[in-house]
Amino acid sequence: MGWGDLGAFGEPSKETPNLDQMASEGMLFLDFYTANPLCSPSRAALLTGRLPVRNGFYTTNAHARNAYTPQDIVGGIPDSELLLPELLKKAGYINKIIGKWHLGHRPQFHPLKHGFDEWFGSPNCHFGPFDNRALPNIPVYRDWEMIGRYYEDFKIDLKTGEANLTQIYLQEALDFISKQQASQQPFFLYWAIDATHAPVYASKQFLGTSQRGLYGDAVREIDDSIGKILKHLQKLGISENTFVFFTSDNGAALISAPKQGGSNGRFLCGKQTTFEGGMREPAIAWWPGHIPAGGVSHQLGNVMDLFTTSLSLAGLEPPSDRQIDGIDLLPAILQGKLIDRPIFYYRGNEMMAVRVGLYKAHYWTWSNSWEEYSKGIDFCPGQNVSGVTTHTQEEHTTLPLLFHLGRDPGEKYPLSFASDEYQRVMERISVTVQQHKATMVPGQPQLNVCDKAVMNWSPPGCEKLGKCLKPPKSDPKKCFWPH
Amino acid sequence: MGWGDLGAFGEPSKETPNLDQMASEGMLFLDFYTANPLCSPSRAALLTGRLPVRNGFYTTNAHARNAYTPQDIVGGIPDSELLLPELLKKAGYINKIIGKWHLGHRPQFHPLKHGFDEWFGSPNCHFGPFDNRALPNIPVYRDWEMIGRYYEDFKIDLKTGEANLTQIYLQEALDFISKQQASQQPFFLYWAIDATHAPVYASKQFLGTSQRGLYGDAVREIDDSIGKILKHLQKLGISENTFVFFTSDNGAALISAPKQGGSNGRFLCGKQTTFEGGMREPAIAWWPGHIPAGGVSHQLGNVMDLFTTSLSLAGLEPPSDRQIDGIDLLPAILQGKLIDRPIFYYRGNEMMAVRVGLYKAHYWTWSNSWEEYSKGIDFCPGQNVSGVTTHTQEEHTTLPLLFHLGRDPGEKYPLSFASDEYQRVMERISVTVQQHKATMVPGQPQLNVCDKAVMNWSPPGCEKLGKCLKPPKSDPKKCFWPH
Repeated sequence: MGWGDLGAFGEPSKETPNLDQMASEGMLFLDFYTANPLCSPSRAALLTGRLPVRNGFYTTNAHARNAYTPQDIVGGIPDSELLLPELLKKAGYINKIIGKWHLGHRPQFHPLKHGFDEWFGSPNCHFGPFDNRALPNIPVYRDWEMIGRYYEDFKIDLKTGEANLTQIYLQEALDFISKQQASQQPFFLYWAIDATHAPVYASKQFLGTSQRGLYGDAVREIDDSIGKILKHLQKLGISENTFVFFTSDNGAALISAPKQGGSNGRFLCGKQTTFEGGMREPAIAWWPGHIPAGGVSHQLGNVMDLFTTSLSLAGLEPPSDRQIDGIDLLPAILQGKLIDRPIFYYRGNEMMAVRVGLYKAHYWTWSNSWEEYSKGIDFCPGQNVSGVTTHTQEEHTTLPLLFHLGRDPGEKYPLSFASDEYQRVMERISVTVQQHKATMVPGQPQLNVCDKAVMNWSPPGCEKLGKCLKPPKSDPKKCFWPH
Repeated sequence: MGWGDLGAFGEPSKETPNLDQMASEGMLFLDFYTANPLCSPSRAALLTGRLPVRNGFYTTNAHARNAYTPQDIVGGIPDSELLLPELLKKAGYINKIIGKWHLGHRPQFHPLKHGFDEWFGSPNCHFGPFDNRALPNIPVYRDWEMIGRYYEDFKIDLKTGEANLTQIYLQEALDFISKQQASQQPFFLYWAIDATHAPVYASKQFLGTSQRGLYGDAVREIDDSIGKILKHLQKLGISENTFVFFTSDNGAALISAPKQGGSNGRFLCGKQTTFEGGMREPAIAWWPGHIPAGGVSHQLGNVMDLFTTSLSLAGLEPPSDRQIDGIDLLPAILQGKLIDRPIFYYRGNEMMAVRVGLYKAHYWTWSNSWEEYSKGIDFCPGQNVSGVTTHTQEEHTTLPLLFHLGRDPGEKYPLSFASDEYQRVMERISVTVQQHKATMVPGQPQLNVCDKAVMNWSPPGCEKLGKCLKPPKSDPKKCFWPH
């Protein structure tokens, strides 16, 4: 989802009454970011509180490349990383992930080996259908074992867009919450639905209900489901004891527009880029009785903050043996404080840009290559800012392109290098960047090596289902990451 | 102002608490339009309920050109047009205009000759300062007479952007409302402030208060003033008897960005164009006790509807001797009905586009000429949709470019001519367009002739102030309208 996909964020069809109400009962974050402009690294950052370049969710195969966890990826979340559920366990929390994991699909990366107690969902994205020869269909797990595969046992109709997965995920969530309330045990639910990721899907009852087409149908179903989850918490009488946060893992994928793509509002470009459209996210905090209703925050926030904030809510300290990038948002949420902190925009292991206050400095610009662009892959459809949305990797490290995101949220008008404002602001930003780079210890890159042998050929449980496939011989290679 | 300038419409700084509250207490219109992508014709349409091509506020000097009322314009609102205040008078209303008139500045076009009982404001835009030789400074009138001129007597500091005009306009509004309440007489107040038009200005207390720069300061001051007007109505106990509507006369002028330009959200281009950014407007209806709080309407609306709706509120019928384009919005506002009606997008006397339901068909496309564009005049900065934002006037009358504004609010993806959807929708739209064109009787064009002799050299009252200037000899010429 993109920043502009909710009515509360100005989507012109205004079809998200439940999320809009969540915002009016809670707090809207207008300057909230993801840690990376695409899925896997962003989710790894959320669960570790650390930038992907630290937790290993990046590639060094080529300069400034986005990478994720397709089926042939060899890497995944390292054992050395401490995940939020692992830590929450110490405070007696029961942890469940529903939906897309995306932190590696080989046995050692299984979410139940990294702090989760329960899982219903898939390790990879619901691409497909695959042919089970070159590519197996993606498995759906219940806890330790596969219980079926997408397209085979969990239908997604690519022609009509019909799939009832969000309803299944919703029921899983309601049941888990009921169970935890009944046993009076604190819980962490990571509800990672993926209906708005192409191929976009929605249940029959939502198909055709949106002005926005299939993508809008999916948004409506998610919106409706979140309304039901919040009402369930209220009905169970635990809403004042449950902190809920809504956000997304990257900006809307504009390459899927207009049929399956969302909206980044007036921000520049989309998913895969380090422009605002790629990384600024819709975000809402909800906690009746604690968060003042109708609050709006300009706190610079990041998905990594959910790690630190959740620990704080559980009365835990973040690990002190490693660099944690997430901050505790509770002072911003509960006392309306504004904490001064930068936002870093990475592509691979390259710091492309940084935001400090209302200013954003681009040290590198790139949309995608001419080669990709000429094939019709366009991360900025209909947008073209000369010298900014470049199709070659442009280095600006000696003289960064500086934007004022208040006057110019669309990143169209770089400040003049000769202006006093440029000089003054860049002095401040340079210090921030120097500190960041001086103390940066990159983790072992996890997204460099691909091997068809590691695909989901025979996930645990496949025997019972008669769904084991024979893996090919191992042939590890450098993964190819085009953008 | 543009569609995206209010928090309620997704402006990322969310700095319009009063307008946002007005929306939450009233009804937000998401699909509301102006009748023309610039000032004078749009205002003439609002006050007559008729398209500019009917009421004469257009030019035929060149094909598809925008025109307005600069100081040397010879034309203005014809006597044959019936203005809203003229009609409201019959129902005992006292009518006041505060701010920019823009329907002609020669004596016969004076607002008090067209139904208004009171006027405080100026006939033209607050451009300047002029030199009083080639161009006189714009007069400010109180009722029949000039009481000073912009820059001379009503200061606008072009360097700092400071001017206290909005405060003066606010006080005028509050005083007028108090007076009408005291005398128990119904009133129509047309509060036509212009602080967001370049050169943008704000009062000292608002300067530097916005994240968005000077433009944002001006928006904040307008927002604050509207809050004060609404509170005043409530304090006087007449809010449940007063219908208030907020909207704008054209999309944000992106050529004034980033320092003095507003936001059209995710819509394409801005002022001067017939893309959504040029003509879709923020709009809020407020009438406590009548309009359900927090309502949202997808009714296709137009500033011309305010003519018909206001008459309806006053128990009057619109004139039956002429074509009225505005419709009565009360069924949409009070009963949530959706009235099927088209929106026409004109440039001069050319129908460039039409919207029917969620579809918009472009019969002509043009942003501006290559000649202007090469000089840096860009109505679509950072935006470029191939074959759509054209720099030559492109005719599509035989095969219009069709967009679905729900799936594609940004007008980036024309539907395939070969699709069933295209065929089906264009059949319906063609009938609408044929009916419109068959019955169209254009008015006498008022914006064709310019003459320096008609400028504001010696407005009534100039003698008392010693501010009469000597007009040059009359030399009428065709006005030059470049876009």
